Amino acid sequence: MAEKSENFVVTCLRGTSQVFFMENAVTGALFFVAMAVASYFSGIWATTIGALIGIVIATLTAKLLECDETATTSGLFGFNGVLVGAALPTFIAVSPQLWFYIVLGAALSTVVTAAFSATLTKAWGIPGSTGPFVLVGWLMVAGAYSFGSLHVTGEAPKLASDYLQGLVSIPAPIELVQIFFRNIGQVFLLGNEYSGAIILAGIFIASIPAGIAVVAGSVIAMVVSIIMGADPAVVSAGLYGFSPVLTALAVGVIFLAPSMRVAIYAALATVSTVFVQGALDVIMDPAGLPSFTGPYVLTMYMFVAPKKFMAPHPHKSVTDHITAPTKA
Amino acid sequence: MAEKSENFVVTCLRGTSQVFFMENAVTGALFFVAMAVASYFSGIWATTIGALIGIVIATLTAKLLECDETATTSGLFGFNGVLVGAALPTFIAVSPQLWFYIVLGAALSTVVTAAFSATLTKAWGIPGSTGPFVLVGWLMVAGAYSFGSLHVTGEAPKLASDYLQGLVSIPAPIELVQIFFRNIGQVFLLGNEYSGAIILAGIFIASIPAGIAVVAGSVIAMVVSIIMGADPAVVSAGLYGFSPVLTALAVGVIFLAPSMRVAIYAALATVSTVFVQGALDVIMDPAGLPSFTGPYVLTMYMFVAPKKFMAPHPHKSVTDHITAPTKA
Amino acid sequence: MAEKSENFVVTCLRGTSQVFFMENAVTGALFFVAMAVASYFSGIWATTIGALIGIVIATLTAKLLECDETATTSGLFGFNGVLVGAALPTFIAVSPQLWFYIVLGAALSTVVTAAFSATLTKAWGIPGSTGPFVLVGWLMVAGAYSFGSLHVTGEAPKLASDYLQGLVSIPAPIELVQIFFRNIGQVFLLGNEYSGAIILAGIFIASIPAGIAVVAGSVIAMVVSIIMGADPAVVSAGLYGFSPVLTALAVGVIFLAPSMRVAIYAALATVSTVFVQGALDVIMDPAGLPSFTGPYVLTMYMFVAPKKFMAPHPHKSVTDHITAPTKA
Repeated sequence: MAEKSENFVVTCLRGTSQVFFMENAVTGALFFVAMAVASYFSGIWATTIGALIGIVIATLTAKLLECDETATTSGLFGFNGVLVGAALPTFIAVSPQLWFYIVLGAALSTVVTAAFSATLTKAWGIPGSTGPFVLVGWLMVAGAYSFGSLHVTGEAPKLASDYLQGLVSIPAPIELVQIFFRNIGQVFLLGNEYSGAIILAGIFIASIPAGIAVVAGSVIAMVVSIIMGADPAVVSAGLYGFSPVLTALAVGVIFLAPSMRVAIYAALATVSTVFVQGALDVIMDPAGLPSFTGPYVLTMYMFVAPKKFMAPHPHKSVTDHITAPTKA
Repeated sequence: MAEKSENFVVTCLRGTSQVFFMENAVTGALFFVAMAVASYFSGIWATTIGALIGIVIATLTAKLLECDETATTSGLFGFNGVLVGAALPTFIAVSPQLWFYIVLGAALSTVVTAAFSATLTKAWGIPGSTGPFVLVGWLMVAGAYSFGSLHVTGEAPKLASDYLQGLVSIPAPIELVQIFFRNIGQVFLLGNEYSGAIILAGIFIASIPAGIAVVAGSVIAMVVSIIMGADPAVVSAGLYGFSPVLTALAVGVIFLAPSMRVAIYAALATVSTVFVQGALDVIMDPAGLPSFTGPYVLTMYMFVAPKKFMAPHPHKSVTDHITAPTKA
Repeated sequence: MAEKSENFVVTCLRGTSQVFFMENAVTGALFFVAMAVASYFSGIWATTIGALIGIVIATLTAKLLECDETATTSGLFGFNGVLVGAALPTFIAVSPQLWFYIVLGAALSTVVTAAFSATLTKAWGIPGSTGPFVLVGWLMVAGAYSFGSLHVTGEAPKLASDYLQGLVSIPAPIELVQIFFRNIGQVFLLGNEYSGAIILAGIFIASIPAGIAVVAGSVIAMVVSIIMGADPAVVSAGLYGFSPVLTALAVGVIFLAPSMRVAIYAALATVSTVFVQGALDVIMDPAGLPSFTGPYVLTMYMFVAPKKFMAPHPHKSVTDHITAPTKA
């Protein structure tokens, strides 16, 4: 029994580390330290508690549904839950109903992870990654607007035409360092540079190439977003960096076999993610929704999908169409 | 000839009953009675006439396209058409062009049903269900805004920030009974409790387990939406209930083999649908579109998709990627 | 070397002709003449230069990624790039960063083309066609709002309720002729009737049936959009016609084996596209985005997907669901 509960804790920590594609309980524990540090500075503990509930419920749901055991034990059914648990208290005010909402969202994230596995992954070889978190997160935050007992905090929705134009400013060197780490911390929705540093340490402990990719992703995102004149306040909070960081790591190290060729391909993907970030902010905002890791998910799907020797359909008739005459 | 037309009527009635997954002409006839009753009370007959046109055109289109005969005869190419036909006059003012629009929409629903079958169902084993109705309905209502001869009625689009917050009120017992039946009637876009009762009778005639699932779905939706403080006017109209009713029936009885385990799974799906309903209302509203049965469709797809023994993609290289070196 | 560069030019021109599903360098050259003519009349050369950059970069990217050689040589990895290159300067003001943005967008269009091929085409037999252009175009224009160095031009986003209702006016005969040709020119985002005429000539050179389908598509779109009361200014610019033109050609001649049956099917698809055009305008506008060839892409996917003998999922249990008991 004691051994079993110990294993469950290890499974949950592994699941937490899987947010950065690692499978390492120590790394997962450091990620929780990073969340706690951010909570200490902000005085808001709901995010860390939410993440804890998220990983426990998502993992338990996978066990109850008798999902693939190896995958469950390695934390692959848990990392979307920890993100749902961290995200909901970030965008919805604390209330008794919020905790119920987090439990529901975390359980739902496991079902959606299983659904993505049976479709996207099985048919097309595309990893679901944090896609389930993005889908569930969007639905839960959008849903919260409709229920009086769930109060969505944050800015009012704005339209594309409300975006400021023409702002280009180079931050001071010390702020560049802060942005560098916040880009990493924001993967866990933490705009705190110390949290970002702890997370980066946790990644390097688990894998040096992964750590290097994360560093590269954060630097690329910072440079591109500043040069292209993104809103300085958004850049400063690290919100232009967390998706590119994940893209650099996923495309450059995790899902493609590393090589010089793949490094260039991953750099193209990382730069693209910065612009997809800007795009999804504009597209989701009229609905009052944050883009979450949507920019990473969309870009990664596009860059991981292409397979060798598969050509586009030629501009010729498709086969077996419903209008084709039946052979006698 | 007489026999053939009789068969065609039976096929159309069966198609109408398939809206609730039944294959029973008597049930389908009762559903038309329910629509006529609602038309009698409201004085608006366009919805019932539209539904009639919808089922006839959708079924005829399937015959002309020589779609699978068994499926056509059992009404599987018709139920999306009957919903398109009922929905368009609900949201677009009557005009000569509207009737042309309904004919086009119903024919289109058959093509889209065939498209969903060849993709979603064939590749992933996910039933298309009323997905084609939702897609065609969204396109037709959105399109109507652009054409001067089609006038979209109803409220102006609102943004997420326009939602009222903090409303929680328990309706009177008599209203609870009305909501219970309206939740069922709204599957056919009927906010009329008598219509809901007739529909429920029609379902029990065809299948007792189906009737029980519908009752459970309506109760769950009512309780969750009231406790969570959804807009009382929307709850009262039955608009929080029709998608959960379909989810309870589809996940609990139709698409999964019933068991205690499945009942719990279906309950989770049904509760989730209530929140997805709130979410899609918020997401579709800036575009001036109703969510139709979108909340049911999305939730059902997510809960029916997961297959046994399918794990998420591990955080390792995918195979055969375009960047992989070609073997010598 | 000289031969190789000559081949590269031919490949690029073929890729340009593939926008209309042709594989003919002369046709491609005429398409560039059409673009130059429009630039000459408007005084804006950025669109033609953008198209040139687009086709070169997209084709080069396919070569660098070692995409399928036959497909690359026949221009199938290039036509989305030429459209991205023509579209971005149409919606974003010229600046040094715009040219970088076009290069990035064109390279991205090749990756997305490969991704569509490995998913949509391989699994479902649906041609990606200009889907990658639409996706990349939406992301790049939406992204431009977020960056101070990229200035989106054009009208402010509007909501569904802002659409004018009740306008029905028949244009003068001379304007009907202009609309007929602009419907064709707008496939390359050219609201110029002479450009449309040159493009039509280029198509007839490559294929007479293709030319006839384009003529039919333009006429159908003109008649339907005028009769249904679409905004006269939008009709006059040819913006209701370019997607239906592509649908008529793709469904009627290219992707289905031509027959009388297919001609009727294609006519239904073409009429549908006019309304989907109106719909996507309404749906994309709150996000400040043009619909591009999205209406064609969505309609064509729906009409090309249906396969013979494939029935919808019956309303019975799916197989191998995660909740099914494991066999002993």
